[in-house]
Amino acid sequence: MKASILTIGDELLIGQVINTNAAWIAAQLTQIGVEVVRHVTCADDDVDIMRCLNEESQGVQLLILTGGLGPTSDDLTADAVALPSACTVLVNRNGTAPGMLFDDKNLLLVSLPGVPSEMKDIMTTSVLPIIRQRVESEGTLIRYYRTIHTVGIAEAYLADMLSPLEEVLGGTATLAFLPNVAGVRLRIGVPSLAEDRANEALDTIEGKIRERLPDHAVFGTGDTTLAEEVVRLLQVRGSTIAVAESCTAGLLGAAITDVPGASQVFPGGVISYANSIKHQFLDVDESILQTAGAVSSECAVAMAEGVRRAFATTYGVAITGVAGPDGGSPEKPVGTVWIAVATHGTTRSAQYRFGTDRSANRQRSVMMALAMIWQELRGQHA
Amino acid sequence: MKASILTIGDELLIGQVINTNAAWIAAQLTQIGVEVVRHVTCADDDVDIMRCLNEESQGVQLLILTGGLGPTSDDLTADAVALPSACTVLVNRNGTAPGMLFDDKNLLLVSLPGVPSEMKDIMTTSVLPIIRQRVESEGTLIRYYRTIHTVGIAEAYLADMLSPLEEVLGGTATLAFLPNVAGVRLRIGVPSLAEDRANEALDTIEGKIRERLPDHAVFGTGDTTLAEEVVRLLQVRGSTIAVAESCTAGLLGAAITDVPGASQVFPGGVISYANSIKHQFLDVDESILQTAGAVSSECAVAMAEGVRRAFATTYGVAITGVAGPDGGSPEKPVGTVWIAVATHGTTRSAQYRFGTDRSANRQRSVMMALAMIWQELRGQHA
Repeated sequence: MKASILTIGDELLIGQVINTNAAWIAAQLTQIGVEVVRHVTCADDDVDIMRCLNEESQGVQLLILTGGLGPTSDDLTADAVALPSACTVLVNRNGTAPGMLFDDKNLLLVSLPGVPSEMKDIMTTSVLPIIRQRVESEGTLIRYYRTIHTVGIAEAYLADMLSPLEEVLGGTATLAFLPNVAGVRLRIGVPSLAEDRANEALDTIEGKIRERLPDHAVFGTGDTTLAEEVVRLLQVRGSTIAVAESCTAGLLGAAITDVPGASQVFPGGVISYANSIKHQFLDVDESILQTAGAVSSECAVAMAEGVRRAFATTYGVAITGVAGPDGGSPEKPVGTVWIAVATHGTTRSAQYRFGTDRSANRQRSVMMALAMIWQELRGQHA
Repeated sequence: MKASILTIGDELLIGQVINTNAAWIAAQLTQIGVEVVRHVTCADDDVDIMRCLNEESQGVQLLILTGGLGPTSDDLTADAVALPSACTVLVNRNGTAPGMLFDDKNLLLVSLPGVPSEMKDIMTTSVLPIIRQRVESEGTLIRYYRTIHTVGIAEAYLADMLSPLEEVLGGTATLAFLPNVAGVRLRIGVPSLAEDRANEALDTIEGKIRERLPDHAVFGTGDTTLAEEVVRLLQVRGSTIAVAESCTAGLLGAAITDVPGASQVFPGGVISYANSIKHQFLDVDESILQTAGAVSSECAVAMAEGVRRAFATTYGVAITGVAGPDGGSPEKPVGTVWIAVATHGTTRSAQYRFGTDRSANRQRSVMMALAMIWQELRGQHA
C-alpha cells in the first residue's frame, strides 16, 4: 500500500511551525508496512487544497490529510476527490472537529484535525487499526525497517568496519547511515511479505553488524534513546547518579529525567554555572579554579567527585565547557568541553572539541556525557 | 516571487527525521518577501526526484531542493528541469558537497546539501542575497508578517478582546492565532510593495492590538523568546536569579542559559528531584514534606526562598509537580504543578493543572515559570 501525506496550513508553509505531524504519521504508517511516497504541504485555501488532493490521490491507495479549513473542509475534501462512498465520522475525544474517513475501492482518504494531540489520538484509536488490516490482507512485498543506534564512532569508520556491505546485507536489504548529535544510526531495510519473516532477516543482519563493530558501539535498536538505556542499566544495577552541570545548566538532568521512572536512580544535581557555586556546593578547590580554570580536567573531576559525595550516589557526572558564542580563548576555544564520570575509586575525564554553535555544543555535551556514563556502566560487566 | 521547497530523503518520508530544513528555508524566504506555496518531500530516487522537479517547477519562480543523491544529483537536477543556463557552484564551507544554482529567466533553481548546518550556511551567505535582490526588483505586492507573542491568556479570550477584528486590521491585513506551549502568538500579515511601508502598517496594527490587551499580555515580537526577555530584563535591572527544580529537573536552568550572556544574571541552581535533596540543599522543612507534601504551595515557596538564600540572588524560582505518567493521586493528579517566585519580602506561588503527557507537562511548567518571573519583573515598573 502506497500513501501520501498532505498537511495543510499557512503556518507550515511560512516555516513558523515545524511539520511534526507529517513525520509522526509517516513513522506510524511505515511501522505497519505502508510505503509513504510523498509529503506535501499546501496553503489553507480551497483551490489549493482541491488541486493537491487531486494530484496526491493519483498512484496511492491511502491519502492522509491534516489541518485545513475546519468543519467546512470535509465537504470540500469529498468534493475534491469525487468519492462516491459514504463518509465515516471518526470521534475526536480531545477536541471539537472530528476526523473523516472516505473508503473507496481504490483510495482510502482520511481527513484529520491539525492539532497534534487530536490527530494522534484519532490515528491511534480509529485509523491505524483499519489500515493495518488492509495492509495484511494485501499479500504484497513490504519494506520493513530496523534502526541500530551506535555511539562514539564516526560515520566513515563505521562504513569501513561494515565493508564490503554486500556481505552484511545479502541481496535485497538496504542500509542507511544517519548521523545525528547522539551518534550514527544504522537503518536496515528488508522487503518481505510478512512481519515475522522480516524480523528474522533483520535479526540476521543486525547480528552481522554487531559482530563487525567493537564492543560498546551499539547502545540499542528501534525507539530507544541513550538516556533510556542509561536509566535502565542504573535500575538493573541498583545504582544512582547525580549531575554537576556548568555549560549545560540542567540539560543533562532534564535528559535523564525525560525517562519515566528516573526518580529511582536520580536524586538530583547542582547547576553550577558560576565558579562560586562550584566551590560552595561542589567543594571544588579555589586553587583549581584559579590555576587550571573552570574548563579543565581538574575542575570536571572535582565537580563529578564533589556531586557524588554531596548526593551520596554511585556515580557523579560533571560537564564544564565553553558553549559560546563568547568566553573562548586561544587555549580553550568555543566548543571546548570537559566531561568527568566519578565512581568508587576511579574518575574518568575526557575533553571534547565541538563547534561554534552554542545550542549544538550543549546538546553534544549531554549526549557525550550519557555515552560516557553508558560505557562506564557497560564496562563493569565487560 | 512564488517558491516551492523540495526536500529529498527516505529518512524524511518514513518519519525518522523531522523536516526542519523545509521550515527553516520557508521562514527565511518568507522574511524577504517570497511567497512559499508548496513543500514537497520525495524519495531519494532518480525517477521520483525528476518527477517532482518537473511538477514543482511549474507555476513558481524559485525552486529550492535539499538532500538527495549527493554529487551525482546535480547532473540529474539539471537534466530534469532541462535548464539551458549555466550552473553556478555555491561554496560549502562546512562540508564537501557544494550547492548549485541554475538561473533561467523563468526559474531560479537552487540545489543544496541536506545537512542542516551546511544548507543554512550556503543559504545565508550565497542564496538569500541573490533572491532578496530579485524580489525587490519585481515591484509586486508582497505579504509581510509580524508575530506578537502573548502569554497567560487563552485563545478564546484573546479573540474576544480583539473583536471586531475589522477595526483592528482594516481592509487587507490578516490575523492568525497560533497557540503553543508558551502562549498564543498573533501573526499579522499585510500586503505591501515595500518593506518600510509594510512596517508602518504592521506598527499601526500592533499598536491597536496592544491597546486592546491587558498590560503584561505581550512579551515581545518577532524572533524573541520569553527566556530572552527574562534574561534581558534581569540584565537591565542588575538582578540575578537561581532555580530550584524538581519535576523539570534542569529544564528551566537550560532554558535560561539558552540565552547567550545568561551568566551575568544566573549563577545556577539545584535539581532537587528527591525529597532528601529539597531538605539538604534548599532547607525545606521536613515537616512540610511530611504534611503538605513535595507537590504543594508550601514546598514550592520553601524551595524558592531556600535557593534564593543559598545562591544569594535577587530572585529564586521553584518548580515542583507530578509530571507523570506515575505518581498521581486523587488530590494531586498527574499534571499538578506548583511554581513559586521569591524575592525580597514577597513570594508568590501558583498551582497549574496541565495534562497527562510527561514531556508536555515539563515544558509547560518551564514556560509558566518564565511567565511568572517575567510578570514579576514587569510588575516592578508597572
